[in-house]
Order: sequence, then structure tokens, then C-alpha cells
Amino acid sequence: MNENKDLSSPSIFIGKQGNDIISFGSGQPDLPPPKEAVEGISIRSDLRYGLIQGQKELREALSSEYPTSTLDNFVITNGASEALDLIFRAMGKGKVLLPKPYYYSYPHIVRLAGMQPVYTQLKDGRIDIDDFRKKVGECKAVLINSPSNPTGRVENIQTLKEIEKITGELGVWVVSDEVYKELIYERENYILKGRHVITVNSFSKTYAMCGVRVGYLWSPEQEIVNKAIEIKTHTSMNTNLVGQDMALRATRAPRSYILNQLKIWRRRRDIIYKGLCDLGLDLWKPEGAFYVLPKVKNPRKLVWLLYKKYKVITYLGEWFGAPDRIRLSYALDEEKIKEGLDRIEKGLKEIG
Amino acid sequence: MNENKDLSSPSIFIGKQGNDIISFGSGQPDLPPPKEAVEGISIRSDLRYGLIQGQKELREALSSEYPTSTLDNFVITNGASEALDLIFRAMGKGKVLLPKPYYYSYPHIVRLAGMQPVYTQLKDGRIDIDDFRKKVGECKAVLINSPSNPTGRVENIQTLKEIEKITGELGVWVVSDEVYKELIYERENYILKGRHVITVNSFSKTYAMCGVRVGYLWSPEQEIVNKAIEIKTHTSMNTNLVGQDMALRATRAPRSYILNQLKIWRRRRDIIYKGLCDLGLDLWKPEGAFYVLPKVKNPRKLVWLLYKKYKVITYLGEWFGAPDRIRLSYALDEEKIKEGLDRIEKGLKEIG
Repeated sequence: MNENKDLSSPSIFIGKQGNDIISFGSGQPDLPPPKEAVEGISIRSDLRYGLIQGQKELREALSSEYPTSTLDNFVITNGASEALDLIFRAMGKGKVLLPKPYYYSYPHIVRLAGMQPVYTQLKDGRIDIDDFRKKVGECKAVLINSPSNPTGRVENIQTLKEIEKITGELGVWVVSDEVYKELIYERENYILKGRHVITVNSFSKTYAMCGVRVGYLWSPEQEIVNKAIEIKTHTSMNTNLVGQDMALRATRAPRSYILNQLKIWRRRRDIIYKGLCDLGLDLWKPEGAFYVLPKVKNPRKLVWLLYKKYKVITYLGEWFGAPDRIRLSYALDEEKIKEGLDRIEKGLKEIG
Repeated sequence: MNENKDLSSPSIFIGKQGNDIISFGSGQPDLPPPKEAVEGISIRSDLRYGLIQGQKELREALSSEYPTSTLDNFVITNGASEALDLIFRAMGKGKVLLPKPYYYSYPHIVRLAGMQPVYTQLKDGRIDIDDFRKKVGECKAVLINSPSNPTGRVENIQTLKEIEKITGELGVWVVSDEVYKELIYERENYILKGRHVITVNSFSKTYAMCGVRVGYLWSPEQEIVNKAIEIKTHTSMNTNLVGQDMALRATRAPRSYILNQLKIWRRRRDIIYKGLCDLGLDLWKPEGAFYVLPKVKNPRKLVWLLYKKYKVITYLGEWFGAPDRIRLSYALDEEKIKEGLDRIEKGLKEIG
């Protein structure tokens, strides 16, 4: 066993698939994309540069979701990752407030852009508005991710409105990562609003097309949008044209596609939540996205044992700023979830 | 006329096309991509994440061009732009030596990565090895682009070998941007070698598929490659899977595809070079790529007049670090090149 050396990042588990392995690791849908996105695409033979900002048709399709918006307010990006990278590079120096636990890449993205992450610890898996208020004043931006990876939680509407208000008064940017916006079980999502809000979204999770890498950023503040475009001109140019075609077609999928997927996700959520509760674990009930983040004793030992002996992949909470927890993605068949829970039970007993 | 305000960057001309406009502006092939790249592509319905480093099949196809290499030495990127961005971000702080005139984005990419550009002035359009030697010692890297955008020049083999030697002894990285490697009229290209060399290339120019955004970086030094992969994990993840499929298929196009294109480029090169010489302009003979960079009197006035009155788009040399010149891309029909030359003659006469 060499868990301390090998468990330094999730990359240890990348490509580790197989019939006998049950993976609660990777954070991507296993369900198929809408047929609209993949059928009947013909590759055009004009493959010249597209607009850096993104194809007009795709921005047009998106603008119906942002009623006060013009096409100029969007930049189509290589997934939500590039959108975040461009936003923070466009901001220049300063601090970014991250709720903790956070999505694995957030602190890296912030630092790579030359900014500095500052953390506010979640309370019961949700933002502690008092701690938030204490820390936000020194920051240039905050990054909100509701529904959240890795907590599966959705912020209270009251909290989100409070965040809008505090940041608006202070002139602090709110970057709202809404990639799980449609995967929400408890209520409609609340979309953060205001001139100081920069929204990030993608087609990856909603339409099960992570590998196509199409996302976008949106803000009513044209200056930050223009700055992002300028940076993208030098660092990657237009987002892949075929990918943008596929994204455009995905937006034409009927609402029932999303609702049917949501039914499947909710059933899986119920199984894994009940299963982990029955094992006596302490965890937050997931309200969106497809992750659970239970507390466990000796997480490194457990994750390593589960992988090596029981062929179950789980992720260390410490990669997400939650060192006393492990993260499970439930993007897999119900039968596999149940089998995985059985194996986890054995692993937990063995650890004691 | 408001040339001083509007001529601040090439973006003024983006999207400015039309039957009556003759554009020597945009630097991309107007010829079609190989049919192998576009025909019979079927979009698979498994659109999950690919490897951050790039699909194995594509790296396999590329590795035949890099005989001493393993698949681990490559990263497939969103065009050569992202390859350069990742390389300089992976290097950390320090100076980068850029031959001047340079490709428009180079100083921006270097600065965005937190590094500092330093310049060595070309002599007759080629690297002045004495000046190079004086400046390289203080740098962490040099960026070589041969054949070059915007000069159209190819460096002497003697110079390239000297650069290999000097940088090898000093331990300075050589980033070799070889996107025009196949578009060379005078001789075979000389590929820079050594453990300290990082090669950048793309499918954009060779296979006329700029909008697909697939490029790559390659280095025998695994550490810098791994660092680039790590950064890409956070900032964009895998390069678009459909684009990688198309790139893989493009590599299967017969050599005759490239040779036929080269014939067309050479004919155009001959027309524009002779035409501009006949107009009395002072310029370097292009040996590769598809650009000429003639000296002109009053470049701002000329570029503006040509655009506004004669509907000819040319680029200001100052965008490329050559304030006494203008850049023309000859990626257009011979007939249009001739018509454009006629209009330029009128513009030159009017400027006097």
C-alpha cells in the first residue's frame, strides 16, 4: 500500500475503468446526449476561423435564456473551464473568495490567473453568510457554484439574494458557475443577477457532452466580456466550430430530454443517499448535481482500500478542501450503485 | 478619416468580407481541407471526456514524424495558440526572446503567461545571430518561427544550428513554432532539435482547418510536457474530440494534397512578389508561409486609404513590430491578387 504517494490528485484514477471496477470517481454524466446533438451533423468543408466570441447562431439561441441580454454579452468557450480561466485572467490581480469544499480545479484556476484564493468554510454544506460577509470585503471576486460539486447542495434563495446585495454594494464580482443549473431536485434554481454578475455555463452536464468542450460566459458588463475576448484571441481563438454546431443543435432538444434525465438522477440520488445513511455515515442530502460528500474515518486508508481490494473508485475529500470526507459521483447505473454500496460497507467494516 | 483611432489592432478588419473587398488581411488558407478530414465523419454518441493529453490514436499518428519520441511527449491542444499559452504558463516567470517583426499574438501570449518579452531585431528579415547571442543569456526561452509570419522568411540552417548550440549550452528553452513547416518554397525545412526544444504545430495551415482548432506541443523533456498537461486539466481539459478525429483523418491525406497546395502557394507568391517589386517597393522575398511585409511610406495613411477608398484590406506592420511596413497575406485567388495589386498601385500613387 502506498496511498500517501499515489493519492496526490484524482489523476491516479483517470482511465481506470473495467467491468470489475465500480467507479464513483469521474464527474460526468454516463447518460447519452440528446439525439439532436449528434444525428445528421455534416462537417462543412469551410473550416476557416470562426468568430473568437462564438458563432452568432449559438449566441442567439442562448440569448433567449438571458432576456435582458444582447449577443455581445456572450463568449463561447472551450468548456466552463476556459470560461473561468478567461474571467480570472481578465480581472488582473486580487483575491477570489471560494466557498470550501470547492470544485477541485477552482484554486488552481485562480492561482494560474495570477489571483489568490481565499476561503469561506461552508456550514452544513451551505454558505455561512456571516463568515462570507467578513471575508468578501478584501476580495475582487467571489465564485458561487450552486448546485455544487462536490457538496451536491443548493444555496438558499435568501443567501443568494444576500450575496447579490453585499457584493453589489461592495463592487465585488460574482462569478456564478451554473453548470449544474438544470440538475436540481428540490426546487427551480435561482439565477444570480446584477451588473456585477458573470455567469458560466456549459453543455457538458446538461446535455452529456463533456468531451465536446463547449461552454460559455455571460455578463451584462461588456467591459469584462471584451477583455475575455481579447485574451481568447491570443490564447485559443474561436471555440471548435463543429462543437458549436453540436451545442446549437443540443439547445433544440425538447425539455423532456432534461426532465427524463432528471428522473434518473433523482432515483440514483435517493438510492445512494439512503444507502450511505444506512451505513451510518454522516452526509448532506444532495439537492442538485450528482455528488455526495460523506464524512468518513481515515479517508486515505478507506479510498485506497476500496480501490485496491474492493475495486471501487471514490475520490478523496481533501482534493476538494474537505479532508475528513470522500466524494462519490453517482453517474452510474442503479445496479452498480447498489453493488458499490455493498463493497463500501465491507471496506468500512474492515477499516473499523 | 480616423485611422489613428480605428487602426489599433487587426480586429477592425474581422468579418469585413464582401464581393467588392479584396482582403490581404487574415492569415489563413482559402483552399479546401483534404477530403479525408471532412468526409464520412460520424459523430459518436459517447461524448464523455477524452484524455487531457489528447487521444492516443492522434498522438500515435504524430509520433511517426518524431522518431525518437514516445506518445507521452505530446499534448494535443486547441490550436497552436493554446500550445504556446500552456508552454509559457508552464515555465513560470522570466524573459522570452522574440525575433522582431513577430507574429501579432506572441508578445501578448508571453505577457499573459506572466513572462516578459525581449526582442532581437531581424536583419534582412532573418535572425542576427550576434544580437541574438547578446540577448539570449538573460532569457528563459526563445521563440523561433521559421517559416515566419509575418516576414515569409526561412532561417538559414547554419543559424538554426547555431541557435541549437547556444541555447543548449545556456540551458535556454527553444520554442519552435512550426505551423508553416510544410509551406516552404526554397528547401526542406530544418527542424530544431535538442532536449531543450519544444515544438508547436497545428493542423490549421497545413490542412486548411483553422476553425477546428487542433494543434499540439511536443518535447523530449517530459517534465515540461507534464506541467502543460496539469495546467490544461484546469483551464480547458481535453481538446474537442470531433476535432481530434478530423485531425487524425487529415494525417491520412496523401502527400500529394500538400504538394498540390504548395504549387498554388508558390504561384501566388511569385505573382505578389513580382507585382510589389514592380511597384518599386522594398521587400523580402517570401520563402515560406503566405505573407509579404513590404516597406511603405506612411503605412497608417496607406492602409486606411486602401481600405476606405480602394476596398483593399492590408495589415499595419506595427501590429507585428514593423512600424515602417505593411503585411499582406496572399491567401486568395490569383485574379484577386492581381486586381488587388492594381488598386494598391493607385493607393501608392495617391499617397505619393
